[in-house]
Amino acid sequence: MSGVLEFYFDFISPFSYLAHAQVADLAARHDRKLAYHVVNLAALKLEGGNTGPTTREMPLKYKYSGTDMQRWAARYGTVIKRPTSHQPDRLNKGAFLADDRGVMADYVTNVWRRVWGEGGDMASDDLMRAVAADMGWDADDYLAFTVSVQAEARYQAATKAAHERGVFGVPTMIIGEEMWWGNDRLDFVEEYLAGGSGA
Amino acid sequence: MSGVLEFYFDFISPFSYLAHAQVADLAARHDRKLAYHVVNLAALKLEGGNTGPTTREMPLKYKYSGTDMQRWAARYGTVIKRPTSHQPDRLNKGAFLADDRGVMADYVTNVWRRVWGEGGDMASDDLMRAVAADMGWDADDYLAFTVSVQAEARYQAATKAAHERGVFGVPTMIIGEEMWWGNDRLDFVEEYLAGGSGA
Repeated sequence: MSGVLEFYFDFISPFSYLAHAQVADLAARHDRKLAYHVVNLAALKLEGGNTGPTTREMPLKYKYSGTDMQRWAARYGTVIKRPTSHQPDRLNKGAFLADDRGVMADYVTNVWRRVWGEGGDMASDDLMRAVAADMGWDADDYLAFTVSVQAEARYQAATKAAHERGVFGVPTMIIGEEMWWGNDRLDFVEEYLAGGSGA
Repeated sequence: MSGVLEFYFDFISPFSYLAHAQVADLAARHDRKLAYHVVNLAALKLEGGNTGPTTREMPLKYKYSGTDMQRWAARYGTVIKRPTSHQPDRLNKGAFLADDRGVMADYVTNVWRRVWGEGGDMASDDLMRAVAADMGWDADDYLAFTVSVQAEARYQAATKAAHERGVFGVPTMIIGEEMWWGNDRLDFVEEYLAGGSGA
């Protein structure tokens, strides 16, 4: 079986971070190409009618979410640290530059390591310059791209396309007509790819 | 290891229905007493600052949720059907009568079968009379209890106690100081009970 495993994400999402390494392995094990789709999660949720507060705005849920993400990190044998800010738009838009250059997988790996792996400040120029260095990119070019009209237009179009596809949150995995939402549904994706009952 | 596995639920919740049979087996396998706690989910969410819309009010999420619950039902080898109404308060309050009579497990099993197993009308007197018959109860006594001042006071107190315990959604499982939210976290509960890394 071959084909594409689509993966929708926003760098603001800890569970997209947790899912990322797993989904890359999963795609490789089942001979699927992994297609990355960055979205503006805040805008996507509004498009889907989700006008509620974020997890950070709900104290009990936020506390639990911290415990939950650490449990998943332990299960995956990885590390997760909450970043010091939550404005992912420039990092998200940078994914289009990475896509144009054919290095999306490297880009998301580097950004996630610095943001959720090390608990960095996702809105800071310093973090973005470090990502540019990781990628071997000119930092000024990269920073300029992420605030360009072109990048904003692509970001809005990608989010609209995700909504029209039925995506309302991240991480979301799509294979053909089947969709799964959440890091905690990767086992269903695996079952589906193994020819089982995950769909 | 012995002790209590606490299980918070509201009959409006399909994932509480799905979790219920599993959690009873889980408690039995690990020599834990299962303690049922009914809550008013709508009120609990507001207490926790979750002022957002329900899943039923978000079309894409609602559609996906229907697919997701069927996947879980298939995994568990059970059946789930969406009920024709979503006003669970009287059925929820009836749980206090069941608790007083020492038949909570039978009550939740019967209610869930009729609501999410058969897709019944959870607000109807007919369904409640059928539950009373299942339980061998006088239906008029049962119906009267569920609209009593006493039942309402206990319902509010139970919901407040859950909030103070840190519960913000259902199903929630608690063992001692450890808490897990969601049918999809039962495997972490199992790991914890087996002495692994679920906590």
